[in-house]
Amino acid sequence: MSHADVSHNDLANAIRALAMDAVERAKSGHPGMPMGMADVATVLFTRHLKFDPTAPHWADRDRFVLSAGHGSMLLYALLHLTGYPEMTLEELKNFRQLGARTAGHPEFGHAAGIETTTGPLGQGIATAVGMALGEALLSGEFGRDLVDHHTYVIAGDGCLMEGISHEAASLAGHLGLGRLIVLYDDNEISIDGPTSLALSDDALLRFQSYGWDAERVDGHDPEAVHAAIERAKASPRPSLIACRTVIAKGAPKKAGTAASHGAPLGAEEIEGTRKALGWPHAPFEVPEPIMAAWRAAGARGAAVREEWKQRLAASAARAEFERRIEGRLPESLGAAVAAQKERLVADKPGWASRKSSQEALKVLTETMPELLGGSADLTGSNLTNTPSTAPVTAGALSGRHIHYGVREHAMIAAMNGLALHGGYIPYGGTFLVFTDYCRPSLRLAALMQQRIVMVGTHDSIGLGEDGPTHQPVEHLASLRAIPNMLVFRPADAVETLECWQAALENDKTPSVLALSRQNLPTLRTEAGAENLSARGAYVLAATEGARDATILATGSEVAIAMEARELLASEGIAAAVVSMPSFELFERQEPAWRSAVLGTAPRVAVEAASPFGWTRYVASEDDVVGMKGFGASAPAPALYEHFGITPAAVAARVKALLGKHS
Amino acid sequence: MSHADVSHNDLANAIRALAMDAVERAKSGHPGMPMGMADVATVLFTRHLKFDPTAPHWADRDRFVLSAGHGSMLLYALLHLTGYPEMTLEELKNFRQLGARTAGHPEFGHAAGIETTTGPLGQGIATAVGMALGEALLSGEFGRDLVDHHTYVIAGDGCLMEGISHEAASLAGHLGLGRLIVLYDDNEISIDGPTSLALSDDALLRFQSYGWDAERVDGHDPEAVHAAIERAKASPRPSLIACRTVIAKGAPKKAGTAASHGAPLGAEEIEGTRKALGWPHAPFEVPEPIMAAWRAAGARGAAVREEWKQRLAASAARAEFERRIEGRLPESLGAAVAAQKERLVADKPGWASRKSSQEALKVLTETMPELLGGSADLTGSNLTNTPSTAPVTAGALSGRHIHYGVREHAMIAAMNGLALHGGYIPYGGTFLVFTDYCRPSLRLAALMQQRIVMVGTHDSIGLGEDGPTHQPVEHLASLRAIPNMLVFRPADAVETLECWQAALENDKTPSVLALSRQNLPTLRTEAGAENLSARGAYVLAATEGARDATILATGSEVAIAMEARELLASEGIAAAVVSMPSFELFERQEPAWRSAVLGTAPRVAVEAASPFGWTRYVASEDDVVGMKGFGASAPAPALYEHFGITPAAVAARVKALLGKHS
Repeated sequence: MSHADVSHNDLANAIRALAMDAVERAKSGHPGMPMGMADVATVLFTRHLKFDPTAPHWADRDRFVLSAGHGSMLLYALLHLTGYPEMTLEELKNFRQLGARTAGHPEFGHAAGIETTTGPLGQGIATAVGMALGEALLSGEFGRDLVDHHTYVIAGDGCLMEGISHEAASLAGHLGLGRLIVLYDDNEISIDGPTSLALSDDALLRFQSYGWDAERVDGHDPEAVHAAIERAKASPRPSLIACRTVIAKGAPKKAGTAASHGAPLGAEEIEGTRKALGWPHAPFEVPEPIMAAWRAAGARGAAVREEWKQRLAASAARAEFERRIEGRLPESLGAAVAAQKERLVADKPGWASRKSSQEALKVLTETMPELLGGSADLTGSNLTNTPSTAPVTAGALSGRHIHYGVREHAMIAAMNGLALHGGYIPYGGTFLVFTDYCRPSLRLAALMQQRIVMVGTHDSIGLGEDGPTHQPVEHLASLRAIPNMLVFRPADAVETLECWQAALENDKTPSVLALSRQNLPTLRTEAGAENLSARGAYVLAATEGARDATILATGSEVAIAMEARELLASEGIAAAVVSMPSFELFERQEPAWRSAVLGTAPRVAVEAASPFGWTRYVASEDDVVGMKGFGASAPAPALYEHFGITPAAVAARVKALLGKHS
Repeated sequence: MSHADVSHNDLANAIRALAMDAVERAKSGHPGMPMGMADVATVLFTRHLKFDPTAPHWADRDRFVLSAGHGSMLLYALLHLTGYPEMTLEELKNFRQLGARTAGHPEFGHAAGIETTTGPLGQGIATAVGMALGEALLSGEFGRDLVDHHTYVIAGDGCLMEGISHEAASLAGHLGLGRLIVLYDDNEISIDGPTSLALSDDALLRFQSYGWDAERVDGHDPEAVHAAIERAKASPRPSLIACRTVIAKGAPKKAGTAASHGAPLGAEEIEGTRKALGWPHAPFEVPEPIMAAWRAAGARGAAVREEWKQRLAASAARAEFERRIEGRLPESLGAAVAAQKERLVADKPGWASRKSSQEALKVLTETMPELLGGSADLTGSNLTNTPSTAPVTAGALSGRHIHYGVREHAMIAAMNGLALHGGYIPYGGTFLVFTDYCRPSLRLAALMQQRIVMVGTHDSIGLGEDGPTHQPVEHLASLRAIPNMLVFRPADAVETLECWQAALENDKTPSVLALSRQNLPTLRTEAGAENLSARGAYVLAATEGARDATILATGSEVAIAMEARELLASEGIAAAVVSMPSFELFERQEPAWRSAVLGTAPRVAVEAASPFGWTRYVASEDDVVGMKGFGASAPAPALYEHFGITPAAVAARVKALLGKHS
């Protein structure tokens, strides 16, 4: 057999064999999906996908997202066969083992060619919407000479059952992201059994209702799949191609059944599959002509990339394009922030921190064209828009503020996609309490080390009348518990600016900014060169002599701590106030800074939130003036009084701790 | 004007006037929606809804859910007008004030007639799916003589944009919940402006794709609305009636604009509205004939209820029906649990705690017909089914285990609806990590004090190869931070049974059970009458003399603590092991129990999770043997070794704390 004699079936069977062999060796994994989608993936990777395994980070490559991440062996097999150097045969043999690039689910950063981490269902398709949006907007900025690619997704029934798929598909349809093409593995099998156990959707009608093109093809007919992809590429609308497939196609007994979904096929079934497929080769063996044909498919993109490189080299925008793609901050940023800090210290505005955020964003969005904002239908509340950020409208080729709609989950996932795509630093707003709606995507941002900024306004009972459903209580704690997540709760306009700066400078970590609805005084009196908020915590108000006590506070409660300090001073008690905008950054400081800030005097904390986690810094949750339960509906001042989060209560707590009773 | 002369417009305008007046007085709220949907709500409440304000908890009442909870004044006005005694004029005047029943968003428990807490968008419609499912199943059990009602929802654009609406509507369509009728406030306005800013869905097509009936009517034409509801009631499918309305209808300048969405109309606009509506009455004044007509509408249900009461009185199933509706546990439960505990202590099984949960459920589901299980497409992993729980299939009139599909969010919301409906204690499973997908509904369960049990299996790196996307790290902490939530992490088969019992006995609190994938030894050696897990924490292994140290542990790490104890004993260090299946229940114990359990010796904790929050019980997070970051993909034993969660590491930590180095 020569390279030219290699058939589609040979190519697809190589995927099937590698997938079943690797799962078998690991004694763990999902063989059914890669075997079922091998034909579709072969057509995509050999005839359509624009990529170059020798330059996997090429900015103008097509993006491929395996939303059905449990079928990870499909992706690993494709990367190996098409010649990504990192994805060696050894890696396939080490599937799901400690330290391997071939984790159970595709992990961004483990190997080039893994465009995003998937596994939590629905995340991939929603992240891909962000990638397609990034492509659309960046091509609007830099032209089709530099940005001209597609985003392909393979998604399964599970992805389409998840609510996030609705938000994402609806947004993509609204924006008209025509370069987004979803190949739906329509195999009618889920883990529990036939999808008919739980699912009766007409998926085509559903996606048509979002303004997508949608059609169904035989997922084992390569020409039908090819023709459908051609139609999808020609359409100005996003496209869903439902590929009717047989899960674990080729397996004599388990094909078409849930038994092949999430467990190895077993030696006997694998032997039967080899016979049925006409694949007599040993485990992990791919005959040379078939491998050569795959490698030829992988080499298709090199010439296209070369042409692109020449266009980039000739482009006047080259330096800026490269800066944007590499995610480097502009050099002018520091001076712009410093000048604004000077203004704030002079003006001492009494803004709500959400307003302070908008004022910071005015400066930042003017300086940084890569900042791409948005809000989940709360623009006027989150204050995420600025004069520099025109709304992004359908067709999506310009604008810098996205009306995400009431779609918090898809918003954060799309922000992940925008960050992964490159060219943008996305931020987006909703009420802090609704971080609950998008936690799976926030977690992925942390896991993937992506720089996105979630603007969470109305961050406590300070939101007032909307009541307990809208008042965060446990959210600060629950966000602080996420590894590699920066949670900021700035106290005034200066800290808000500093927190924004820190969020942008920490380029491997997503950030959440918790911001007040209510007005707050400016407490910082000196601009200073240093970003004190980036220290995580610092002494905002020291004592003249030795400290009798230290009051730790965040955000809107720092002003309360300052008033408590006055009350205590009037009774001869010297209390320092520590503002603590970020637990996480404080933890990163050297011991000398930490011990100087915390001091040795007894400590009380005040934060209008659950005390859970504060025992890291105070001796007992009893030393936290905070919320013991859910909030209530009333004007904010009444609530602060009702829940006892007041200067008097803080002072009383300090005195009790010092053994002094009034 | 006499009662008989009162027109539809008079009735609807009473709602409009009360809504705009209450919002104006509160200087806060959402007048637009109640004014826009006044016509639809009037038709529903005067011609269709089966209810009796004098018996608001009547089990066979129709359920009405205001999913667009920001329009709370619509509901409060309706309850007042139809004669719910608690909903006085004074309450309307105190809208959004501290202590009022009329919170910013409808809060379950604040007043009869508020069937569920809404405000977080999409929750209401998904909760209503659970209510409709409860009706369908309970009527299957007890017959249409006792259970024969509908579930009505008013939902807005925001509800339909949220992902949870997809999961819920898809599930309802699949199950064929024909008694679910959603009135969609299709007003084309969201907070940011026209919905066209963010939304291009064809809502009718979308719901038809789920197997619903869907049609659009003029929401200001009462006969058209009436006829559509009649058609919906006659249909065997769930129905969406898109009511094209004008937001804030009647307001001369702000009608049809986002300006009326979330802010008071203002005195001038209110004056103009009064003129435009022909409503010359003073604020909060409803003329007597109009009030009488509304009260007559509210009195419609009394006779129907009387007939129902007679049927109940004559029913052989009366006692059991009342027990089920009131949520009282069967008296036989205690003996069944005790007998099972004896068996477990004798057999000492080495089950994974997910398997222990299934074994507990075998006993519980046999004893308690009200236990209604389910899984989000992980039945064989969560082990939530038992021989007593046949699958619930489409048509949904029998069965006790629901294939929720990959719809975690709708699952928990539906469980809330099932609990609120009454007759069932719902539980449902997914991987613990996917509590992130359903947090908003878990939070509402806690806020509403509903007894639901979330079964979260695969609760740590112990799940192994699936990798970091599937391994909970921060989830225990983030769940423990939610007020009124019980988080259980049992160590063995005995504790798992005890935790199930405690979850069922705490009837005002939702529970999460965190359960292992991997096998665990039985550690409890005596059955005992007391539910030690219900104490939250207890000394599992005491020391003979004084304690040198105490090791706190939960779940799968209790066995590790026990081995560490042996290692330490071999070096002459006496360490007690405290099993701590629930922080929350431990916090409720008397001080004597707490101090006896915690002891005065230095403490180390071991839990394969983030240490965040453990400083409540140990001096520093350094004293927690846990996870510092995300997990990895590998077999579980390799991961425990890799992340240093081993008996040797625990012993070393204890020795370091005691100043003894090996």
